[in-house]
Amino acid sequence: MLPTRNRQILLHSRPNGIPQAENFRLAESTLPPIGDGQVLVRHHFLSVDPAMRGWVNAVTNYSDLVPIGGVMRAFAAGDVIESHHPDYKVGDYVVGMLGWQEYSVVSTRAIRYKIAQLDLPLSLYLGALGLNGITAYIGLTKFGEPKPGDTVVVSSAAGSVGSAVGQIAKALGCRAVGIAGGPQKVRWCLDEFGFDAAVDYKSPTFVADLQQACPQGVDVYFDNTSGAISDAVLNSITFGARIVICGTASVASWDPWPAGPRPERHLLVKRAKMQGFINLDHDDLYAESVEQLSAWVRNGQLHYREDILEGLEQAPGSIADLYTGANAGKRLIRLKVV
Amino acid sequence: MLPTRNRQILLHSRPNGIPQAENFRLAESTLPPIGDGQVLVRHHFLSVDPAMRGWVNAVTNYSDLVPIGGVMRAFAAGDVIESHHPDYKVGDYVVGMLGWQEYSVVSTRAIRYKIAQLDLPLSLYLGALGLNGITAYIGLTKFGEPKPGDTVVVSSAAGSVGSAVGQIAKALGCRAVGIAGGPQKVRWCLDEFGFDAAVDYKSPTFVADLQQACPQGVDVYFDNTSGAISDAVLNSITFGARIVICGTASVASWDPWPAGPRPERHLLVKRAKMQGFINLDHDDLYAESVEQLSAWVRNGQLHYREDILEGLEQAPGSIADLYTGANAGKRLIRLKVV
Repeated sequence: MLPTRNRQILLHSRPNGIPQAENFRLAESTLPPIGDGQVLVRHHFLSVDPAMRGWVNAVTNYSDLVPIGGVMRAFAAGDVIESHHPDYKVGDYVVGMLGWQEYSVVSTRAIRYKIAQLDLPLSLYLGALGLNGITAYIGLTKFGEPKPGDTVVVSSAAGSVGSAVGQIAKALGCRAVGIAGGPQKVRWCLDEFGFDAAVDYKSPTFVADLQQACPQGVDVYFDNTSGAISDAVLNSITFGARIVICGTASVASWDPWPAGPRPERHLLVKRAKMQGFINLDHDDLYAESVEQLSAWVRNGQLHYREDILEGLEQAPGSIADLYTGANAGKRLIRLKVV
Repeated sequence: MLPTRNRQILLHSRPNGIPQAENFRLAESTLPPIGDGQVLVRHHFLSVDPAMRGWVNAVTNYSDLVPIGGVMRAFAAGDVIESHHPDYKVGDYVVGMLGWQEYSVVSTRAIRYKIAQLDLPLSLYLGALGLNGITAYIGLTKFGEPKPGDTVVVSSAAGSVGSAVGQIAKALGCRAVGIAGGPQKVRWCLDEFGFDAAVDYKSPTFVADLQQACPQGVDVYFDNTSGAISDAVLNSITFGARIVICGTASVASWDPWPAGPRPERHLLVKRAKMQGFINLDHDDLYAESVEQLSAWVRNGQLHYREDILEGLEQAPGSIADLYTGANAGKRLIRLKVV
């Protein structure tokens, strides 16, 4: 018997800044009929990502806004339990932009990836083999242009994107330096993720620690934070450095717009490049990215941490923690699959 | 009879900020003997460039510093009056980094270009066909990546780099929008340089005027100024925009380092690129750039203005005006050639 009811997290009000639990509400609805070319997916895991702030905020978005009353946009992973599309069959595992809900009835345009080989945990396809890993892989390789021997610095280094950036940098023959918040995350960078060095941006000696960790300067900076962390890195860039702007997690709000030291002179003096990038622009690289990342997971070069919350009810309050660093790895919501 | 005495402008003290007359002094010296592989060049024109600030300032330079007591580094154009090098003969006209002085005895490494065809005024090889034109050409074509129909905005648009940027943009099929200071310079942009639109950054309606001048947004921004002008442009960039950082003329000093609205979010939301560039890195493109620019001068697509001061004595005080906008075109020093 196919399910008929669906529980969903809807956007209730538009946050200014970081989305909080009260900006969402849980609702129940009847599943629509499965149209021609559509599939019914049962969700096992929902993703929680810093990018969600941009999907719901009124200011400076880079995606269409989630409408008030709409299902919260999110990556999810699950299995196909009914298919009206020839390329998908019951039992296929898929990942896609399927929303914060228990089920989705979607055209296959919403599906990003059909998992070919089921030896790795499904949850990985939302993290190390999903948005986060792919962001790290494309951002670093395509925009960071790392060369063996380069010093690659990444902020939010213990996070799911940052930890992948460091490990991919190592796999490509670079020196990886992580910036993370607090001694525990610094230890994860060194012990679990194999960074060559890691520094604590909360330490009073952060600026000096960073310089010491990068005696040859910074060739590639993968910027997940913006703010004072990035200002410190910019002072150490080398000639021809590449700065990949991936996120701005340290900026709580862009209204009012924050100020900081002007970067133009650094870019000019060092002939450096600062470029924004969002992995959703690079769907054509999704499959090859997952394959490369899977190979590194299988051979032990890519480690990951997960921070799994149990049940759909946890979703509304799950974003805010990402901005305080309270999560301990890739944050996911696990749904009870019946 | 070859000359034996040389008059030179030496760096007397290191400015913090914009070099002033008192940072230099005039000195007389004996010309050294002409060594093997060297030539003696008689200077007709000396160049005055905003980049000179960076060559003498203690803070954030992109070239080796001119030492205290050293001849001021500068482009100059003149004729060879004695040659100990097989590739140069007496009567050849050359341009190169020959210094603020009446003569130079140099190895041919200092010479950037030997002028093949003498139909155009020699002074142009320091402006529209020199550092300024080449900066505009390489910066726009190599880093701005303009496509026909793109809106190209340039600051300091009435200046020698900016006016060339606008005209090259037009020659390449783009819409050219200039930002200049005051109604007279705006008129030059429109009447002499053929910009599609030009706006006055000193006007109280500047931000609105700029938006109105760029109804489709800004695809390429050639930034000569930094500061509030650039902040306004960044608010209007399009998806995939290219921002070429060429100069920071609106920033009087980088000590203390000025703050401004953070650009990271714009770069991320618009997947835009901000890149510093200095034409001296691209010597390999010098000859082809001069040839393309010369063709545009000859067919009337590239107009220029010159602001010529008479005599070596004018050199020390000639830089500061560039930062107040008091010059009325490419600033040059004409020497009396005896």
